[in-house]
Amino acid sequence: MEFASDNTSGTAPEIMAALAAVNAGYAPSYGNDPVMERVRAQIREIFEAPDAAVYLVNNGTTANSLSLATYCPPWGGVYCHASAHVEVDECGAPEFFIGGGKMLTVPGARGKMTPEALRKALEATPHGFVHSIQRGIVTLTNTTEAGTVYSVAEIEALAAIAKSFELPVHLDGARFANALVSTNASPAEMSWKAGVDILSFGGTKNGCMGVEAVILFDPTKAWEFELRRKRGGHLFSKHRYLSAQMEAYLTDGLWLRLARAANEKAAALETAFRSHPDARLLYPRDANMVFASLPRALHDRLASAGAHYYCWPGDPAPEGPAEEKIGARFVCSWSTADAEIDAFARALSGSA
Amino acid sequence: MEFASDNTSGTAPEIMAALAAVNAGYAPSYGNDPVMERVRAQIREIFEAPDAAVYLVNNGTTANSLSLATYCPPWGGVYCHASAHVEVDECGAPEFFIGGGKMLTVPGARGKMTPEALRKALEATPHGFVHSIQRGIVTLTNTTEAGTVYSVAEIEALAAIAKSFELPVHLDGARFANALVSTNASPAEMSWKAGVDILSFGGTKNGCMGVEAVILFDPTKAWEFELRRKRGGHLFSKHRYLSAQMEAYLTDGLWLRLARAANEKAAALETAFRSHPDARLLYPRDANMVFASLPRALHDRLASAGAHYYCWPGDPAPEGPAEEKIGARFVCSWSTADAEIDAFARALSGSA
Amino acid sequence: MEFASDNTSGTAPEIMAALAAVNAGYAPSYGNDPVMERVRAQIREIFEAPDAAVYLVNNGTTANSLSLATYCPPWGGVYCHASAHVEVDECGAPEFFIGGGKMLTVPGARGKMTPEALRKALEATPHGFVHSIQRGIVTLTNTTEAGTVYSVAEIEALAAIAKSFELPVHLDGARFANALVSTNASPAEMSWKAGVDILSFGGTKNGCMGVEAVILFDPTKAWEFELRRKRGGHLFSKHRYLSAQMEAYLTDGLWLRLARAANEKAAALETAFRSHPDARLLYPRDANMVFASLPRALHDRLASAGAHYYCWPGDPAPEGPAEEKIGARFVCSWSTADAEIDAFARALSGSA
Amino acid sequence: MEFASDNTSGTAPEIMAALAAVNAGYAPSYGNDPVMERVRAQIREIFEAPDAAVYLVNNGTTANSLSLATYCPPWGGVYCHASAHVEVDECGAPEFFIGGGKMLTVPGARGKMTPEALRKALEATPHGFVHSIQRGIVTLTNTTEAGTVYSVAEIEALAAIAKSFELPVHLDGARFANALVSTNASPAEMSWKAGVDILSFGGTKNGCMGVEAVILFDPTKAWEFELRRKRGGHLFSKHRYLSAQMEAYLTDGLWLRLARAANEKAAALETAFRSHPDARLLYPRDANMVFASLPRALHDRLASAGAHYYCWPGDPAPEGPAEEKIGARFVCSWSTADAEIDAFARALSGSA
Repeated sequence: MEFASDNTSGTAPEIMAALAAVNAGYAPSYGNDPVMERVRAQIREIFEAPDAAVYLVNNGTTANSLSLATYCPPWGGVYCHASAHVEVDECGAPEFFIGGGKMLTVPGARGKMTPEALRKALEATPHGFVHSIQRGIVTLTNTTEAGTVYSVAEIEALAAIAKSFELPVHLDGARFANALVSTNASPAEMSWKAGVDILSFGGTKNGCMGVEAVILFDPTKAWEFELRRKRGGHLFSKHRYLSAQMEAYLTDGLWLRLARAANEKAAALETAFRSHPDARLLYPRDANMVFASLPRALHDRLASAGAHYYCWPGDPAPEGPAEEKIGARFVCSWSTADAEIDAFARALSGSA
Repeated sequence: MEFASDNTSGTAPEIMAALAAVNAGYAPSYGNDPVMERVRAQIREIFEAPDAAVYLVNNGTTANSLSLATYCPPWGGVYCHASAHVEVDECGAPEFFIGGGKMLTVPGARGKMTPEALRKALEATPHGFVHSIQRGIVTLTNTTEAGTVYSVAEIEALAAIAKSFELPVHLDGARFANALVSTNASPAEMSWKAGVDILSFGGTKNGCMGVEAVILFDPTKAWEFELRRKRGGHLFSKHRYLSAQMEAYLTDGLWLRLARAANEKAAALETAFRSHPDARLLYPRDANMVFASLPRALHDRLASAGAHYYCWPGDPAPEGPAEEKIGARFVCSWSTADAEIDAFARALSGSA
Repeated sequence: MEFASDNTSGTAPEIMAALAAVNAGYAPSYGNDPVMERVRAQIREIFEAPDAAVYLVNNGTTANSLSLATYCPPWGGVYCHASAHVEVDECGAPEFFIGGGKMLTVPGARGKMTPEALRKALEATPHGFVHSIQRGIVTLTNTTEAGTVYSVAEIEALAAIAKSFELPVHLDGARFANALVSTNASPAEMSWKAGVDILSFGGTKNGCMGVEAVILFDPTKAWEFELRRKRGGHLFSKHRYLSAQMEAYLTDGLWLRLARAANEKAAALETAFRSHPDARLLYPRDANMVFASLPRALHDRLASAGAHYYCWPGDPAPEGPAEEKIGARFVCSWSTADAEIDAFARALSGSA
Repeated sequence: MEFASDNTSGTAPEIMAALAAVNAGYAPSYGNDPVMERVRAQIREIFEAPDAAVYLVNNGTTANSLSLATYCPPWGGVYCHASAHVEVDECGAPEFFIGGGKMLTVPGARGKMTPEALRKALEATPHGFVHSIQRGIVTLTNTTEAGTVYSVAEIEALAAIAKSFELPVHLDGARFANALVSTNASPAEMSWKAGVDILSFGGTKNGCMGVEAVILFDPTKAWEFELRRKRGGHLFSKHRYLSAQMEAYLTDGLWLRLARAANEKAAALETAFRSHPDARLLYPRDANMVFASLPRALHDRLASAGAHYYCWPGDPAPEGPAEEKIGARFVCSWSTADAEIDAFARALSGSA
């Protein structure tokens, strides 16, 4: 019953097979492998973006940081949701790569910015005032950190505001696939057609071993991105092993199947919670994560049944009265088994 | 006939097998996997360093940059050989991670600093003069970029000079294994016993898919290193796949066997060159690389026979007179086949 | 009627005289001038801090940024009030000098942090969690940006919390003199005795031409500070002109007399506002600044009478209904004349 | 007999008078003072550059660092002479402001690059090779650190090479005035007409208290420069005192008169050296500095007569045999007195 993170899951068998297959013989290093050529073509086709520049890196922090640094000057503000990964979980990596920058958090329920809140935050930064941080970039996250999903229309509305301030838009898509299958939007609709300039396209959390693509829909800054990647230590020597993961991930819609599986398992979890009188869902369950409020007694039962998940305040949950409410995050992945869901549902209902 | 780089080789089968094995089930992310515990124990035992802090990263540029940044202040000079990877091949990554720094190159034949040259370089930096870069750190490379190997005594002599200036010593050991099997020194003798404070311990070029260890023999700065790794985007989510590579690499002496194979193949190449009247070895062949000077006509013959290697000035070699000398680097790896060596020898001798 | 900023005032005659006097002949450059020796002695005596390291720089942004950078690592959080100069008015200079850092704002009425709010902010930063920014430094401002003054006891209480988290404390004292004369505290009581480790000691706003001292009460990091100052371009060539300003400023209590004059003029302004039925003081007037809320009609009358001051939202004040409230800041300096106060009072009362 | 540096001289009386005059009353801060408007107009006229952007900063390190940072990306190489101030005397300030960068030194006799050496250095940086630092900017120094002066034709030749590599050109003109009066070139000829894009225009060493102008002949990056200046802590609060210095400096050709005086005094020193059998001039004396080689006995005599100057190796000169040669630098400034020259000549000839 592993719901701690999609990072605790393993690598999908199709991707393991691709790594084994690509291992034969020699291959040019540093991104010049022929597999990367095919990955580039795949992504351009899937995103209907024939000119896009495509690069592979190891994880989401890197994809986000390099993306932001490429589009935001050192004196720029990065408008992000208050719960964004770049704000909360990257130990200042964006600021390090930007060479400054300042996270300017935008509030919003359910992990989402509203257009009004974004506009207000943008207006709060004085324009052309040398004493202030300048407006730099807007970064959105989809699937959000609250497990909710922006619709294409919501992305469009936020990006339109950014554009009205002449700002670029980044999308942290560590769980982009989960958002797509949740909305049935096309990759292009959810990205450049909605106004996204640069996308962190996640693979790791969704069945890859460790690979994310960065997609620059306008290739103007492609060479700058390559230099930033190299001097960040993020150009892999034996790059074929990144390429092979991504190629398999994108082949025959594997990425969408894996995300769909994760979302479905989370839907099953949601159903289990909804049937329990003491559990309360904190946010709508749009993708592969369920956020719930539980009384401590219930949490204790789940934990002793062997369920793993993050809870707050404090993890592991500190001692306290049995009726005290604990917040908890349950993440499903491509590898979540029906048996895990069933066991969890039984533990939840007390029938275990 | 692939001699371009040890980075064009694949992953050793034992390491592929370990990746497959570690893939089963869930594992804690971000370095908390149980395999990492075992790797730490292995390295401490192999290096006779029970207190060492051990971290895994993706490649050599990262290992070097994070190591230097941990030990050298932003206003510090990094004393390195003029041909060092950190000086020539990392697009300023060390300066980026250090947040400044300045490479202060030390000349030296055959890719090696001499103690005299190092001392002279150190003395050339004014002590306590606020207008100047300050002395920061000494970094050595073993196996060197010229394919030569420092003996333990040579490392000791250079480190002693560094210590006499109260400076820490970093060793870029992207090809540490090749240096060890070349000298029969023990890992401890070639590192901390010789005065090395922090080691980039290479795996990628020697049969891993993409992993290097950084070993801090004094763990005082371990937590700082962890923070630098994280904010550099270099903490892997699914860290078990780094751990598993390193575990297999270190198990039953695989790393040394792989390095020995590479060195032996290079020795065979050396023999072939020595028997050719027009080829001249540029440096002693100590490990897995051969540097040679060839007349263009000979180069053309090798190239048309299908041999891959770097040459200079200019790669591919520009046109010119047949007798013009071309410099060339031939790298063998764990996967170099006898058949490649034989085919090369035949091409060299003209009997192909 | 100039109340826009204490930066629009000139240089006190005693300081101009000192500049003229120090101009004769040659003097060692880069801080080695004999006047600096005397300044160091003055400050050590005034602050009862015989071991303090003392440096001069050009302005408050520099003093703050270098101070924070010296005590806060690149991955550290800087706990500051939401209205702090380092957060709002320095275009990211602290982050630039720190090489990262993250301003973590602490709310609080009247420009002041409360101990509870500071503790809460500190506790909100996870301890020893590698994914998060780490706790770095606490920075206070006295006189605050709201014109209020922390008492010694308040500084002590905040610093005690910082110390309980093992954090250093910086004090932005761009208007330190105004705070001192407001509280009758001694310099030592308001700084190191209260727990302040490093102080930006302002001169520019209080009658100097352009000089601030940075005082490190513990000199351990003095050399590092010198290097940071130099590589920030902040070591003056003809340093005697900074020294001479500071020497004159500190001689015979000039600095306190200038601050007292400014505070007294602001007290007179405060009296004028209190006697007006439509004006409302926004914060207690503790030092040399008055913050008031005015109906637009009153603002218009003051502006057309020639009074200069900042107002918000928007400066100059946008058009709107006559009864709409406008926020306004009135700053007095050492050079504010009685005639200005009188003229302002007349304009305010409508008797002008 | 003060020849240590032009930084040990004082401020010219005309400039002191201007500071006194500008002190009356209030003035807008942060560069919005009316004097700055006039300075901008003066510089545009003097340089025949009606569109130039003009900013004032405190010293040469700042002017150089901000200039280079504005035109060179973090992964860019800065081609400078091996003796350049940015390489030797700024404690890594350029790298700090650039956020990386790498000084790539160009050799050359007499403190000057030759076109051939510059071209060779540029060609040595691989083009479009992601593993290498990229070509960034060429920076020249005039008057050079060896006291020699590039002619306009020499600047043109070097700038033409930079342009052929599509690189911008910076000129460190800490002693620009001395170079101008040495060559009788016009300011425009020595700068933008010769291919210079951005100029550090020195004032401090030539009679100002502490001010340098940065002139961007193409104003495209003006706003970026303003932001870099601010976040570097280099935007002065009471900016009028920078403006007033520069205005007086440029009025009625004062700057050229001061430089001419300095050069003439150095010419007199040169004459004295030429008449001494044991002294040897190391470089042509083109401006206000004389470099000579002296036997230790002669140095000892000069030193005991009270002459101040830098010598090497080691300053103060270490003990050694009387006939050993010591290198020495003698700098004249606007304030060097005839009496100093005379006294020095007597000490040199032994007639003192």
